[in-house]
Amino acid sequence: MYKVTRPTLLLDKKKAIQNIERMAKKAKASGVNYRPHFKTHFSKEIGEWYREYGVISITVSSIDMAVYFAGQGWNDITIAFPINVLQIEVLKHLSKQVKLGLVVESIEAIEVINTSISDSVDVYIKVDTGYRRTGVWHKKVDDINEMIQSVADHHVPKGLLAHFGHTYRENQKDRIISIFKTEVGLLNALRDQLGGSLLISVGDTPSASIMKSFEHIDEIRPGNLVFYDVMQAQIGSCRYEDIAVCLAAPVVAVYPDRSEVVVHGGAVHLSKESLLDSEGKAYYGVVVLLGEKGWSAPLDDCSVISLSQEHGKITMSSKEFEKVKIGSILGILPVHSCLTANLMKEYTTLRGERISTLHQ
Amino acid sequence: MYKVTRPTLLLDKKKAIQNIERMAKKAKASGVNYRPHFKTHFSKEIGEWYREYGVISITVSSIDMAVYFAGQGWNDITIAFPINVLQIEVLKHLSKQVKLGLVVESIEAIEVINTSISDSVDVYIKVDTGYRRTGVWHKKVDDINEMIQSVADHHVPKGLLAHFGHTYRENQKDRIISIFKTEVGLLNALRDQLGGSLLISVGDTPSASIMKSFEHIDEIRPGNLVFYDVMQAQIGSCRYEDIAVCLAAPVVAVYPDRSEVVVHGGAVHLSKESLLDSEGKAYYGVVVLLGEKGWSAPLDDCSVISLSQEHGKITMSSKEFEKVKIGSILGILPVHSCLTANLMKEYTTLRGERISTLHQ
Repeated sequence: MYKVTRPTLLLDKKKAIQNIERMAKKAKASGVNYRPHFKTHFSKEIGEWYREYGVISITVSSIDMAVYFAGQGWNDITIAFPINVLQIEVLKHLSKQVKLGLVVESIEAIEVINTSISDSVDVYIKVDTGYRRTGVWHKKVDDINEMIQSVADHHVPKGLLAHFGHTYRENQKDRIISIFKTEVGLLNALRDQLGGSLLISVGDTPSASIMKSFEHIDEIRPGNLVFYDVMQAQIGSCRYEDIAVCLAAPVVAVYPDRSEVVVHGGAVHLSKESLLDSEGKAYYGVVVLLGEKGWSAPLDDCSVISLSQEHGKITMSSKEFEKVKIGSILGILPVHSCLTANLMKEYTTLRGERISTLHQ
Repeated sequence: MYKVTRPTLLLDKKKAIQNIERMAKKAKASGVNYRPHFKTHFSKEIGEWYREYGVISITVSSIDMAVYFAGQGWNDITIAFPINVLQIEVLKHLSKQVKLGLVVESIEAIEVINTSISDSVDVYIKVDTGYRRTGVWHKKVDDINEMIQSVADHHVPKGLLAHFGHTYRENQKDRIISIFKTEVGLLNALRDQLGGSLLISVGDTPSASIMKSFEHIDEIRPGNLVFYDVMQAQIGSCRYEDIAVCLAAPVVAVYPDRSEVVVHGGAVHLSKESLLDSEGKAYYGVVVLLGEKGWSAPLDDCSVISLSQEHGKITMSSKEFEKVKIGSILGILPVHSCLTANLMKEYTTLRGERISTLHQ
């Protein structure tokens, strides 16, 4: 494998492609459109890997990311974030370049689009079915209807878009299946009340991974699954062996007295996203060994227990501790791969090829 | 003030310079060397602001950062992180370019330096006086003595370097003063046992800010104080009005039912560093209003209560909520400015000048 000398985000390309393929096939078998969220990798090169599986439409989370992928030949892009009306000039430009999908949840935002964008765009109403982050509450049918009428004056009222973000708080498959079915039911009830012609687009990685097939929806938008991470493994969306990215971190200090090591790999590499272990203690990553062909399964009783800006403090079992010395490289599976990728800004494949992103 | 249209890290240059000046004067009055940590801003332009206050020596947290500042005319640089022996070739190159300070805590690392670096470098022994992150435990006098002897064969055993990181967990000034005095005492006892010629270099922002003068040490290395942040205000290191950076975040959705707004400003802008409020709930930033000449004091009963990748969810008092609409800009004082700056990659002054960093 590629020889690492500094904190490096390794990418197992084969695993990432398997993750893409699995979801693309499941979407196809269910007859739903797969519009993957590119906010996880934000890389033109990784974007290309999806094309082989028939993907032609994508999701992004910011206007900047839409501009980047529009420049890479993607011409069907939904920005799955309530539009920032202050950047309307950029959206106007984008609407001339690609088939643009915008997400709204207020009459005010629709009026800005109607007034400023002359080329027709697809407009999705963001609907809140229970997560309580963004969206119009699904029971506000009159408000939603009014929005659709307002959109229809100038643009295409394309669909109802929802994100079942509360699946990320679960770790039992039947609970996630239940959330998915309940909320899809609410969206269908809403669509029926609105006349039945809107698409339904949903997006979380847990339910997209756990559902065996997709009924009563038209589109899925999961993003994280290209890499997965420890959070998704804990939820049950993937197996640890499906995780496709791993931070390689040099060991800079060892502490036999407390069976701990410190690596160069901190909050500016992994992010401060944490999970709680069975004793309620926070951890920031799971430790693996790097080998010729990739990385091992998680090591028992080893985890990243604290992060400073550049330091990662790792507790190790005495068995594993014995094998580590200054200058060793440890692998860390990230808790939240989207944030780790955003911080690391580029990937290195197991063969040492560097893959750039929007940020590098 | 500069008109913001997207998430933007505003920098109040006047406050930052006041923060630098205050510490530079205090260090000078105490007769200690001020070697500011540049990991907080990692910007060549902000680095220049220190020169006016007599700063000629700096601290960095990574080899990459040392290379960047060496290229900006800084020629006395300490890398306050246990050396990564895998990057010894870069250190070798740097040792020819600048007066280089390296931090070690093992014979193994010293042997790598002795074998590989022919130009003389200053070597500091990292000493742990209680934080239990990195460093040789201060009571291991024989081990430290052996390290110093080993360094002396090829290089200059320059000093004992410590970081009282446990001050970050305190919020009472007398506790922080007590930690500082106790640990400085331990370092002096150690220095005496080692023969008395080593420098003592210490570094945390809380004690550097709270101590009125510095006795029995030779050097201070605080970094965060150039910007400060909510964490430091909570600790008591600064006043809220000393905080010199603020994320300007566009409001993209408003929720009258729950008195909440969502801004474009999430984990990829602020970082997931959090603090606990008086009820034990996590928050990710403090809300201020932006005005012509900067930003207001923190708004009562308003805070960032959750972050997704791009979304920030803010709870607001009904009084403040009424003034906000889609397209408004809210200011967010970050919990941890070092991590926010690292994510945002550049600064915008109140006049709209963009200031670049190592990352942009």
